[in-house]
Amino acid sequence: MSLLVEKYGGTSVGSVERIRAVAENVAASAGQGHQVIVVVSAMSGETNRLLALADEVHKDPPAREIDVLVSTGEQVTIALLSMALDDIGVKARSYTGGQIRILTDDIHGRARIQSIDAAKVKSDLDKGRVVVIAGFQGVDSLNNITTLGRGGSDTTAVAMAAALNADECRIYTDVDGVYTTDPRIVPEARRLDRITFEEMLELSGAGAKVLQIRSVEFAGKYNVPLRVLSSFKPGPGTLITYEDKSMEQPLISGIACTLDEAKVTVRGVPDRPGIAYSILGAVSDAHVIVDMIVQNIGSDGMTDFTFTIPSTDLQKCIALLDPVVEQLGASEVVGDSDLAKISLVGVGMRSHAGIATTMFEALSEKGINIQMISTSEIKISVTIDKEYAELAVRTLHKTFDLEETTSVVV
Amino acid sequence: MSLLVEKYGGTSVGSVERIRAVAENVAASAGQGHQVIVVVSAMSGETNRLLALADEVHKDPPAREIDVLVSTGEQVTIALLSMALDDIGVKARSYTGGQIRILTDDIHGRARIQSIDAAKVKSDLDKGRVVVIAGFQGVDSLNNITTLGRGGSDTTAVAMAAALNADECRIYTDVDGVYTTDPRIVPEARRLDRITFEEMLELSGAGAKVLQIRSVEFAGKYNVPLRVLSSFKPGPGTLITYEDKSMEQPLISGIACTLDEAKVTVRGVPDRPGIAYSILGAVSDAHVIVDMIVQNIGSDGMTDFTFTIPSTDLQKCIALLDPVVEQLGASEVVGDSDLAKISLVGVGMRSHAGIATTMFEALSEKGINIQMISTSEIKISVTIDKEYAELAVRTLHKTFDLEETTSVVV
Repeated sequence: MSLLVEKYGGTSVGSVERIRAVAENVAASAGQGHQVIVVVSAMSGETNRLLALADEVHKDPPAREIDVLVSTGEQVTIALLSMALDDIGVKARSYTGGQIRILTDDIHGRARIQSIDAAKVKSDLDKGRVVVIAGFQGVDSLNNITTLGRGGSDTTAVAMAAALNADECRIYTDVDGVYTTDPRIVPEARRLDRITFEEMLELSGAGAKVLQIRSVEFAGKYNVPLRVLSSFKPGPGTLITYEDKSMEQPLISGIACTLDEAKVTVRGVPDRPGIAYSILGAVSDAHVIVDMIVQNIGSDGMTDFTFTIPSTDLQKCIALLDPVVEQLGASEVVGDSDLAKISLVGVGMRSHAGIATTMFEALSEKGINIQMISTSEIKISVTIDKEYAELAVRTLHKTFDLEETTSVVV
Repeated sequence: MSLLVEKYGGTSVGSVERIRAVAENVAASAGQGHQVIVVVSAMSGETNRLLALADEVHKDPPAREIDVLVSTGEQVTIALLSMALDDIGVKARSYTGGQIRILTDDIHGRARIQSIDAAKVKSDLDKGRVVVIAGFQGVDSLNNITTLGRGGSDTTAVAMAAALNADECRIYTDVDGVYTTDPRIVPEARRLDRITFEEMLELSGAGAKVLQIRSVEFAGKYNVPLRVLSSFKPGPGTLITYEDKSMEQPLISGIACTLDEAKVTVRGVPDRPGIAYSILGAVSDAHVIVDMIVQNIGSDGMTDFTFTIPSTDLQKCIALLDPVVEQLGASEVVGDSDLAKISLVGVGMRSHAGIATTMFEALSEKGINIQMISTSEIKISVTIDKEYAELAVRTLHKTFDLEETTSVVV
């Protein structure tokens, strides 16, 4: 008998019919003798409906009350799913985040989980009940309702799995696993049977949208085996776990691609200490997230300073840098939002040189110009003109033989 | 500075515009220097929308999960109202029933309040905040969500007022007070400035729908001055309080009328002990609520046994009595659903004889036949043919001069 945590997102519980289907899925797991904890999101569309009401009432509603409002979304789902389970003869019990004291800090809208009171859940499991938990929500130390922010239900599921030492945390979603790259771009993209936490983190950070990066971090930290699988079609999905030393690691596990990158360049900056801080301090004060940063070696005591940000923040960022440019005595700030970022990720990179060379050569053969480069131990990212993004992904997928299951030797 | 509890029902918070209007109303009370606790219901239609979802999932959903589901309705309202208050510069804080530990028994769907943790509410009031509380809901000793059943938000408001020793509990509704009778029947019906708890209880029990009977009982028990007033138009409403010995009491405060009464008669019952129990025991086992009961003196060892029930239960009641009739050796059971019950209520009755005589005489002059009579210390109820209900109410309203504000001497 295993203890499983199963998480179903908003699309998976988006209608009464879908909730019934989830109940059948949960019943199958329970029927195999497993203890099951289910974590659910709000029915798709519900959170937006609630936020639209708030919008009508207040142009900038207090964050505390937003959390009171939107947390009702998951509460509706847990009740309906528990009813659906009862209807097919599965004993179930629902809990809000507050009821099982998912204790968080008090940052409304993006709270972080600090602890979970597992006793009540354990007691229900021991009585043979399925426990249905509202994802995305908790309470702070004063019992105020908090929410965890985007992808919060994944985090709730992983936290429950960690707190109860579950055998596996299964994230049911609308895709059937983690792919070598986006199958809409490369039809030959292959589902991975397994991938490491590190690789998944780098892929999520590089734009793969299968899992929220926080839940992967959390799972890695507490060593919770995480499986991504489809709630619409059966299959083994992809297991995310620690690197298995006994296995030969593929060089490259996946290719991620984001199309919403913008590049900001401050030209003619006096090349002296403190430049990066002056520029990036102003940007981060405005809560703009900076990704890649490049500063070339300058000449004549001047240099260019370039970084990438989400393209939606481009106008705001340029506006806020105008006074900084003047103050620094730099010549100008320019932006370019027609950028894509392509990232190769794989733990195999650690032990193999030459990946970058192969990547650059493949892109060069297609006439694709690389604008910026950044690397980590298991990732290489480049930015290129957005027009070439799909061609680049298809080229690299083929270059590194990702449609094959065997690993590549360069 | 007074401490006020203000309760707004589903119609009063039925839209974003209405919620804004309630916020203005609350702001006015707070602006007069009062401390204000607001208790709200779900937006009108919301509870039915949620129950319809449950219905789709399960034909007889577990009561515990129904409560988890429907309690989200008030939670949405408290968040939106708190936002609306914030929007007009009034500091406010919302709480679910669970957050301020409105402790109830564990009877889901019709739980009774046992205690309230007033400390958190007091602390907020002392900080100058308006406290917005979800009506209708609580938690049991195991922290399961419970609901109080019909009119539960009124009960929550009165319980909050009792727990915090409030100066007044104001029930905002869609009528502007308690009337001498239904103004739709008698256009001359007059709003009462004040009425006693006992009278209000009898009027509620006799069909006046202004307040749930449980909230009136609760207010009387804890001596919470209760005021009914309109959330749509300004005015003093009606104050429900204890009898003021210094005031001359009107003979009759009001006339209530119900049109959904049915009469069940078991004919030819052997006149021996245990008959009432045999018949009414079966009826109450089926959860049918019996109102008036009449057993005439029999002849030849046989008697007729008659009682009234809600007309919706008539068919069910006759069916379940068929075997009882056979078992008792009675001759038959017959029903009549074309009944109205007219009740005169007034604390002044206590000290004056002759009210009943005046009532019967007035009805007789109009040719209205009285079928059954029941009395309490401050109430006389009669059942008559439904056709004559409006005539009877108008006649009695005039007979007892209820359109005048002076009291009547018979």
